[in-house]
Amino acid sequence: MAVVVQKYGGTSVGSIDKIKAVAKRVVDRKNKGEDVVVVVSAMGKTTDKLVSMAREISTKPIRRELDMLMSTGEQVSISLLAIALNEMGYESISLTGFQAGIETEGYHTKARIQDIDIERVKKYLDEGKIVVVAGFQGINENGDITTLGRGGSDTTAVALAAKLGCTCEIYTDVDGIYTVDPRLFPTARKLDSISYEEMLEMASLGAGIMETRAVEIGQKFNVPIYVALSSEEWPGTYIKEFDVNMESKAITGLSASDKDLMVTVNHVPYDSKNISMIFQELAKMDINIDMISQTAPSHGVVNVSFTAPKTDEDIILNIMEKLKKEFSDIEIDIEKNITKFSVVGIGMRSQSGVAAKIFEIFANNNIGFKQVTTSEIRISYTISTQDTQRAIEAVAREFNL
Amino acid sequence: MAVVVQKYGGTSVGSIDKIKAVAKRVVDRKNKGEDVVVVVSAMGKTTDKLVSMAREISTKPIRRELDMLMSTGEQVSISLLAIALNEMGYESISLTGFQAGIETEGYHTKARIQDIDIERVKKYLDEGKIVVVAGFQGINENGDITTLGRGGSDTTAVALAAKLGCTCEIYTDVDGIYTVDPRLFPTARKLDSISYEEMLEMASLGAGIMETRAVEIGQKFNVPIYVALSSEEWPGTYIKEFDVNMESKAITGLSASDKDLMVTVNHVPYDSKNISMIFQELAKMDINIDMISQTAPSHGVVNVSFTAPKTDEDIILNIMEKLKKEFSDIEIDIEKNITKFSVVGIGMRSQSGVAAKIFEIFANNNIGFKQVTTSEIRISYTISTQDTQRAIEAVAREFNL
Repeated sequence: MAVVVQKYGGTSVGSIDKIKAVAKRVVDRKNKGEDVVVVVSAMGKTTDKLVSMAREISTKPIRRELDMLMSTGEQVSISLLAIALNEMGYESISLTGFQAGIETEGYHTKARIQDIDIERVKKYLDEGKIVVVAGFQGINENGDITTLGRGGSDTTAVALAAKLGCTCEIYTDVDGIYTVDPRLFPTARKLDSISYEEMLEMASLGAGIMETRAVEIGQKFNVPIYVALSSEEWPGTYIKEFDVNMESKAITGLSASDKDLMVTVNHVPYDSKNISMIFQELAKMDINIDMISQTAPSHGVVNVSFTAPKTDEDIILNIMEKLKKEFSDIEIDIEKNITKFSVVGIGMRSQSGVAAKIFEIFANNNIGFKQVTTSEIRISYTISTQDTQRAIEAVAREFNL
Repeated sequence: MAVVVQKYGGTSVGSIDKIKAVAKRVVDRKNKGEDVVVVVSAMGKTTDKLVSMAREISTKPIRRELDMLMSTGEQVSISLLAIALNEMGYESISLTGFQAGIETEGYHTKARIQDIDIERVKKYLDEGKIVVVAGFQGINENGDITTLGRGGSDTTAVALAAKLGCTCEIYTDVDGIYTVDPRLFPTARKLDSISYEEMLEMASLGAGIMETRAVEIGQKFNVPIYVALSSEEWPGTYIKEFDVNMESKAITGLSASDKDLMVTVNHVPYDSKNISMIFQELAKMDINIDMISQTAPSHGVVNVSFTAPKTDEDIILNIMEKLKKEFSDIEIDIEKNITKFSVVGIGMRSQSGVAAKIFEIFANNNIGFKQVTTSEIRISYTISTQDTQRAIEAVAREFNL
């Protein structure tokens, strides 16, 4: 029997009525003759509420215990959904991360899935049950409950689909993937499909629909991912392997993210070991560094800038304090008022001149940029947040997004 | 190093401030040079709230999923308490039921502890950590999360103390064990100590302080149990092995419980197999039957009455429907307006005449009773709820409780 993994996010299970609506959708699917594994997030703002309780006790709650606390959110959702499915006459069983065999490694609150022991899920599917799995959580080699960090439930869903060799459907509060976030550029077009590579770039740029990790797993195991609205039956967007020639457009999408801050470390004594040390310290604390730029050495020192998630500001400040003890002359500057502005498209591989055109658009619109990075299918700029809207409109219009 | 198990109930951890207060008490104890295992219940009314969410979806939510749902309550408490302890500078680790090795058997929502694999708890104690264990929950042989039913957190605590060979302290919102519930009889005396046997009788009578199962485990493994207030440093009551001669009083305590209902099955064809079948059906569904009485056979039929928890009414009604198919002539009567009134005392073994005296008191006060049962150290009566207060005052005064 064909299997499908469906994932419903926090908004989609935000109330008892919404859970019942999800149960109805799942049952409709089961009635079409497919086995269904459902992955759910915590209801609505549950995770935030739990974290704020912890913060009433400690400004920096110990991470192992935060995981213990947060993982209850999904556990509530799965049990309620399983109750709803059983109530509708469909045998259903809920599984926490550890029960679903989700083995993780790495830091608490941002663990990674190492492997899934899928036998228990398969056994229940074979028995004809609908299996409801808690997203966002797993268990590490010590038997401690872990959580997977942002977008963790998507990661759980895609990883399960990879193990089961099936499609993963991500139901959310957006109706698909757009060339530009429609809140920023209302005339943006919805894409029928997008390649893993492009989606990865869009996701890593903070497009906000799916986290990078889930798409990476999808790409690695060739899991077709379908992103659509949970509340309506409108067609969504497929993320899948893709023929380069299918789209002739140079740019598939555009994204603007203000989730990062830019750290500049001035007057670092010029030695590759020193620069390496800075990034090793950041890596030790699992900080996701994105754009890096470095000035040419002058008078034996260099200035290094990098962007990193605003949510990691505390940890970054700690690391910077440590670095000051090592290099007494350095100065740290943290700029929060920045936007990462990016254009993405697999067509860029075969079409040159995209970068040149954007530099021209920026110049014509008087938009300055602090950093530029490029990949084969993406160009990103760090710009001032106040220039974001103008940049979006100018570029989207020029490339007909 | 000496070890102690402390248990704090839902009221004691009912808010963030109360959790901090519990953390302070635990730390004070640790500073006295004792290793501490803390068992906590869900915060305040959390369990009720979770159950009512489930009931919004289904009038009879599937029990496996109810366990999955309810067990999140304690998981929230343990993580918050561990965060509070770590914040105070004391290394602490929280463990869910399955992580603490609590293996259960029997029905979901009323599972029993089969054994505890105590190694993980011991390991953390050896490392100097304060170990915080979720009460009320465990894991069964299928790897499913189970809950232990009423008083489950007490059971967890006493069972852990049994495995660790130490004292168990139960902190609650009553300051000890009284001869009579002080809400019913304000001049009741607080006992310094009470024997397991007496406490078992008091508990099974619904004295409301501790459930039978926890006391039974205490008795079986000779775990001294100390019951006291969590908010103040007043002396509480010890439950322990006890010399009969230490108390010369005939009656140690008195209790009145309105948690049961009385079911009467009229016109059951007189055959011991039929009666046995009724109770087998009830046993299959794990219904705790308490008082049983049967009329003498007349015209080939008997009337059977028994008391059972009001919370099991739905299940009992189902069973009775089944019985009606078997015996078409039977009539079922359910009486909810009853009180189980009991007197308890190990002195009753050596002093006769207690029963006679109580019958006399009842007669003088015009109190009728529907059933009587006796054990070596207890006499219980099923009386009408409206007679309860008069019965308490008359008996307590007569026996100087």
